[in-house]
Amino acid sequence: MAAEVHGGRAKCLQRLIRLDMPVPTTVALSFDAVRRIAHGWTPDMEALLAPFGEDPLLSVRPSSLDPDWGGPGAVLNIGMNGVRHKTLAAQIGDAAATALYLRFIQSYAVNVARLDAEPFRHAEGDLDAMLAAYEEETDEPFPQDPAQQLSEVLRFMARAWDGTTARILREAKGAPADAGLGLVVQAMALGVGAPESGAGVIQFADEATGAPQIKGRYKSQSQGRDALKGNGAIYLTKDARGPSLEELCPAIYADLVRFGTLARQKLREEMQIEFTIENDALFVLDAVRVPRSSRAAVRIAVALAEDKIIPREEAILRIPPATLNDLLHRQVAPGADRDVFARGIAASPGAASGRLVFSSSEAQASAARGEPSVLVRRETTPEDIRGMHAASAVVTARGGITSHAAVIGRGLGLPCIVGVSALAIDPKSRTVTASGQVLAEGDLVTVDGHTGELLVGQPEMVEPALGEAFQTLLDWADAVRDIGVRANADTPADAETARIFNAEGIGLCRTEHMFFEGERLTVMREMIFAESPADRAAALDRLLPMQRADFADLFKIMRGLPVCIRLFDPPLHEFLPTDKAGLRELAEALDRPLSDVTHRAREMSEYNPMLGLRGVRLGITVPEIYDMQARAIFEAAADVARHGDPVIPEIMIPLVSARREVELVRGRMDAVAAAVRAEKRAEIPYKLGVMVETPRAALRAGDIAESTTFLSFGTNDLTQMTYGLSRDDAGRFMSDYVQKGVYREDPFHTLDLEGVGELLAMGAERGRAMRPDIVLSVCGEHGGSQAAIAFCRAYGFDYVSCSPFRVPGARLSAARLAISERMGFAEPPLKPGKVLIYQ
Amino acid sequence: MAAEVHGGRAKCLQRLIRLDMPVPTTVALSFDAVRRIAHGWTPDMEALLAPFGEDPLLSVRPSSLDPDWGGPGAVLNIGMNGVRHKTLAAQIGDAAATALYLRFIQSYAVNVARLDAEPFRHAEGDLDAMLAAYEEETDEPFPQDPAQQLSEVLRFMARAWDGTTARILREAKGAPADAGLGLVVQAMALGVGAPESGAGVIQFADEATGAPQIKGRYKSQSQGRDALKGNGAIYLTKDARGPSLEELCPAIYADLVRFGTLARQKLREEMQIEFTIENDALFVLDAVRVPRSSRAAVRIAVALAEDKIIPREEAILRIPPATLNDLLHRQVAPGADRDVFARGIAASPGAASGRLVFSSSEAQASAARGEPSVLVRRETTPEDIRGMHAASAVVTARGGITSHAAVIGRGLGLPCIVGVSALAIDPKSRTVTASGQVLAEGDLVTVDGHTGELLVGQPEMVEPALGEAFQTLLDWADAVRDIGVRANADTPADAETARIFNAEGIGLCRTEHMFFEGERLTVMREMIFAESPADRAAALDRLLPMQRADFADLFKIMRGLPVCIRLFDPPLHEFLPTDKAGLRELAEALDRPLSDVTHRAREMSEYNPMLGLRGVRLGITVPEIYDMQARAIFEAAADVARHGDPVIPEIMIPLVSARREVELVRGRMDAVAAAVRAEKRAEIPYKLGVMVETPRAALRAGDIAESTTFLSFGTNDLTQMTYGLSRDDAGRFMSDYVQKGVYREDPFHTLDLEGVGELLAMGAERGRAMRPDIVLSVCGEHGGSQAAIAFCRAYGFDYVSCSPFRVPGARLSAARLAISERMGFAEPPLKPGKVLIYQ
Repeated sequence: MAAEVHGGRAKCLQRLIRLDMPVPTTVALSFDAVRRIAHGWTPDMEALLAPFGEDPLLSVRPSSLDPDWGGPGAVLNIGMNGVRHKTLAAQIGDAAATALYLRFIQSYAVNVARLDAEPFRHAEGDLDAMLAAYEEETDEPFPQDPAQQLSEVLRFMARAWDGTTARILREAKGAPADAGLGLVVQAMALGVGAPESGAGVIQFADEATGAPQIKGRYKSQSQGRDALKGNGAIYLTKDARGPSLEELCPAIYADLVRFGTLARQKLREEMQIEFTIENDALFVLDAVRVPRSSRAAVRIAVALAEDKIIPREEAILRIPPATLNDLLHRQVAPGADRDVFARGIAASPGAASGRLVFSSSEAQASAARGEPSVLVRRETTPEDIRGMHAASAVVTARGGITSHAAVIGRGLGLPCIVGVSALAIDPKSRTVTASGQVLAEGDLVTVDGHTGELLVGQPEMVEPALGEAFQTLLDWADAVRDIGVRANADTPADAETARIFNAEGIGLCRTEHMFFEGERLTVMREMIFAESPADRAAALDRLLPMQRADFADLFKIMRGLPVCIRLFDPPLHEFLPTDKAGLRELAEALDRPLSDVTHRAREMSEYNPMLGLRGVRLGITVPEIYDMQARAIFEAAADVARHGDPVIPEIMIPLVSARREVELVRGRMDAVAAAVRAEKRAEIPYKLGVMVETPRAALRAGDIAESTTFLSFGTNDLTQMTYGLSRDDAGRFMSDYVQKGVYREDPFHTLDLEGVGELLAMGAERGRAMRPDIVLSVCGEHGGSQAAIAFCRAYGFDYVSCSPFRVPGARLSAARLAISERMGFAEPPLKPGKVLIYQ
Repeated sequence: MAAEVHGGRAKCLQRLIRLDMPVPTTVALSFDAVRRIAHGWTPDMEALLAPFGEDPLLSVRPSSLDPDWGGPGAVLNIGMNGVRHKTLAAQIGDAAATALYLRFIQSYAVNVARLDAEPFRHAEGDLDAMLAAYEEETDEPFPQDPAQQLSEVLRFMARAWDGTTARILREAKGAPADAGLGLVVQAMALGVGAPESGAGVIQFADEATGAPQIKGRYKSQSQGRDALKGNGAIYLTKDARGPSLEELCPAIYADLVRFGTLARQKLREEMQIEFTIENDALFVLDAVRVPRSSRAAVRIAVALAEDKIIPREEAILRIPPATLNDLLHRQVAPGADRDVFARGIAASPGAASGRLVFSSSEAQASAARGEPSVLVRRETTPEDIRGMHAASAVVTARGGITSHAAVIGRGLGLPCIVGVSALAIDPKSRTVTASGQVLAEGDLVTVDGHTGELLVGQPEMVEPALGEAFQTLLDWADAVRDIGVRANADTPADAETARIFNAEGIGLCRTEHMFFEGERLTVMREMIFAESPADRAAALDRLLPMQRADFADLFKIMRGLPVCIRLFDPPLHEFLPTDKAGLRELAEALDRPLSDVTHRAREMSEYNPMLGLRGVRLGITVPEIYDMQARAIFEAAADVARHGDPVIPEIMIPLVSARREVELVRGRMDAVAAAVRAEKRAEIPYKLGVMVETPRAALRAGDIAESTTFLSFGTNDLTQMTYGLSRDDAGRFMSDYVQKGVYREDPFHTLDLEGVGELLAMGAERGRAMRPDIVLSVCGEHGGSQAAIAFCRAYGFDYVSCSPFRVPGARLSAARLAISERMGFAEPPLKPGKVLIYQ
């Protein structure tokens, strides 16, 4: 019997039987048989019923390939009819027998015959009324033939599987369109009657933590999972709080513990066992995987491997990388009440509560008072960085998965929801409205960055928990993976997080955020408004020691690990205020007329800043900025290396589209390095590389590679340019597009292998053709995803780099891919460059 | 003797000698010899002088491969010394002999010995003083040895060729870095003495018009080209205004006319002949191509071919396509005074004068008064279209060669300068300042779209002249070219121009401009602000008849030629006002509160409109717009076809990045076509294609082609996205970038074959692999350039499409490429996809 033919439950029962557990007689119907039943076929009922003997009482349970895919509920006590009721009343008493019959009629009427539930609820407790209600509703007496009863139950369950809702629900959980349902027909162990009879479940690990612990409930005179609901259940193990099965039936309890250990050993999994006691005899009805939290999943898998029940590789394969996200962040407690105010795109995981604020300054003021705040903005701009640092969570009405707020949110590990299009923010009245409801500044709200919901109030939370098992699993992953994982880190805090998560270096340090803080912003603006090269140089001279300290901090934290610093990238106008008040303030600070400042700011504005004067274009047009950055990098590296690990900084040039850009920057970098070498009397080694983020840089990677030691693909911008699609503006129609199947996935979320991927592959191949030892990497947001890592492995990239909180997931993904490949069941990665046909 | 060894002049003289013209004894020094002289070698002077006999008088003239490359001026009368002075005085009189000697000493001292000119100017007319001045300046007597004189002259001329200025000047004219100089040493025909002696030039076609006409000047007792400067020259042919050579020396005149005809026949070119009469005997010293205007060049080439002197193909090859631009537009007269106010990028050719205005409404008011105006703006937006229609020329302070103003300017045939960064416009005081100068509204200015200069006042103009020769040349071009040429035409006026220039159809009709006019804009805005689908439908219903009329006009004008209509492309917010006043007006028109209108307008604004909700994305998000356009197209086609030529409209989808986008649009187009078919009871044939303008569409051209009949590459947007460079923002640094050699050329001006070209080639190949009969074209601004046409021919494209005024140039370019290829001297077109190494 294979799970692919009869489903997981049938397979599991067969194994329990082979382990000599007391499983009642069981017959499994295959996916194929059930599919035929759904289409009108009736199996040979005589043959089907033969194994169960005379007058059987039966249960039917679903058995799909994966228990997570759901299925129709179990139906118990099939075979109850007038005759059986009488014989059973003689055995277990009239009350118990009638209760069973009543229960069966009601469940059959409502679930199988699909009759209105109301009349049957009225008839509860009264057998004649119940039978009459059935006849009233159907014009037929309640079926008395067990074969007919079973046949109807099978047909109902087979058809329920084909229902639209059931299909959508299981496909959402990853079931294929043609997923089949098997059915398990089992002789009932009654659980009612004397001596001791009843039913319960038992498991041997805690579902929340994964810690070893015997848990479960037992209830006398009950069936199925009754013990888990309602009153009257007792503990399994001895417990000061009340009676227990261990005391009531010590031999049966001992058997259950033995069966648990056996199942864990042989089924290679923490199992929850469903059992029934009939007449002092134990029956094992079923066993399922213990349901578990992400945290428990990790601990259970690691424990199984440590106990040598499964190999370490299998423990790694059992944990989907996304699971780790839940471990890294606070969560809204699973059962907590949720008062949903609005929904948006879940852009940065974790949950946080705070008082509603509408401006960065209010967020900072709130932080100064020690009050957590949730910053709600139409969109965020680099000016909001300080506010975001101060807030506990961020919500924006606009933007997509890679908008400014989303990127910064993930970088800071800050829960964030973007594209909450229903949100109407009124900055004047300091209120926010969504579908009629109004919230005001100061109201307590909670951001759930996992579901993308903004909640009113403060529901219960679950704290993050890394723990020993988490570390162990990732150590094992590191031992098998064959592609590097670095972190994108802009600040010392980011770098510390990167170290905690064992990143192998910094793959992308964006330097522009460094200029938005307090005094630096003022100096930056002076530099932008400088009238003469001398004025500009003076402003840059004041920025130099701050930059040097920034880099020194990073180098110290990373202790010799590589640090890849991207030179200044954004357009200068991003550093200017956009509103009247800000401009007036700036004019006063610079001691210039407001009209002059306004005019200059407007002169600098751009139609499409994404495609404007930024990156290396700025580096060539105003080369003093890169000169200052290079000096800061080299001086910091020399200072740190003098007292610690050697530092070989990697300098990355953004937005390159032609080789000559690289040559011009290299010329100036070399000159600065030579000057610092002379001043510091120290070697100034460094590596120069290019951030490949324009399609042209990918196409011309061959000649660009000649002047560089590494190419790092910035898949965010590359996706924007390949699609001609701004990440900041895509939010308004992306969900519509994905829903209509125009794009199969949001390409800012899932790397587009067919378009952007082809440019990556081309760039990698051409770069390597020119310079076989070139270091290749991906440093965009996609870098942490398993699909992107699979692609990078297939094309021989050296490493991926992603936000620090995605590093554990990336390490795990990389390990899973290496293991899958070694085991021979890796899917061949999509080779682009072919004409691929798809819907 | 080959022009490649001795230069064009030497080669020409040899041919004149072979034609038995009376050319004085001539010796030619090769490029190689002159190069060696420049490096210090002295030729064997005895051998060099031998052919000229005893006591020769000589001239030396430069002889490079192309006369346009310049070279040192001629030196005459080499060999003059004390002895020769005496013998010559006996022959032609002392005064004439002394004048020759004086002239030689002065020219030798200043040009060859490079002495200060001042002392020699003082000594003019006084032989002793002149000789003394020479001795004073050099401490040596004036050299008497003809061999020494000649040797010094040769060395001076050889070295002058190597000077930096000379090199830069000739390289600007297309000379290769290793271009050589030949020298021609010729026996002097004196032109002084009795009986009749003198010198002159004669030509047989007018240099301005190319019309056959004997023109020139002759001056008794003169040398070289003296007749062309100063007084005392006489006409060549009989002229009522004064004496003529024809009357003075009828036999010599007849010989000159005979030589002219002979030279035209045998040298296959209109030649200007330099001649000298010595003692009543005619000498032909030299012949050069008649200098000529663009207009004359065309007429001369066509006449030569019509007279069967050259084949038609050669006439075509003799006219560079850019030459035609001068013929299509008014020009500032070549000699006119130019008071340059500011310089920018020459974005649309032609010249126009008008009163300065700063707003579209002022331009329209000016047009209403019948006064031509020049519209000066910081930049133009679609709202300025009406103003641009009304103005005679446009100037913008910002933007590049493909900015809005530039594209519209070229489309309208309106002279246009963009990126005049020195321009400070003050809208309040209605003045514009550039480097200190101020102009006010109403001041008369002239835009020279050829040089990119904004001139103060109104210089003299030259009217455009197409003429018969122009038409003939293009008819010949059409007979040989093997790639189609269509026009980009948005309006009936554009389409009329396209027909005049014999475009083979419309390759790109942008439909959005149609919505900016008067009432339509209001309806458009109502559509944008519609609250319900019904309101939106009502607004679109009002636009439908207007659109239908637009398309019907185009179909009628194009009389059965293909018309390719691009569906609505820009983001909707482009149709909203951006200033307070406009928003207030709009709020009133829509009868809504201003705050509501302002809020909605701000909601719709985008960070990067180029990469936002536009093109097919809008077509899918708000499908009613495309539905309305499709209906307008189909109804117009059916109506026009009923009474005239059959119409098969081509519908083009903009900004595609995935195949599914095409399928969704095709589905709706088919539905509209079916509806119109039923209503009109007529076949509704149409072709659906894709504008390939995102890199992804080029990469995925294979699967996109499956749903389309044509792919038209929009190289403007494709260039923007491939480089990650907005055309509207590139103006600020593009000139800097080209000057520093970062980009070899402005990629918006010259198609980037290595990057964008590879995407074109890939797209074409993949599209054709999927659908071998797919029609391929380029419809971007590049389409008209020879480089782009060469590329398109190499990759088997079916046609190019460019603005109507570039159509003649494109037809000529295409013909030249076909002829060059047939003759086997076409350069192999650059094959992209290789790793190309370049500086």
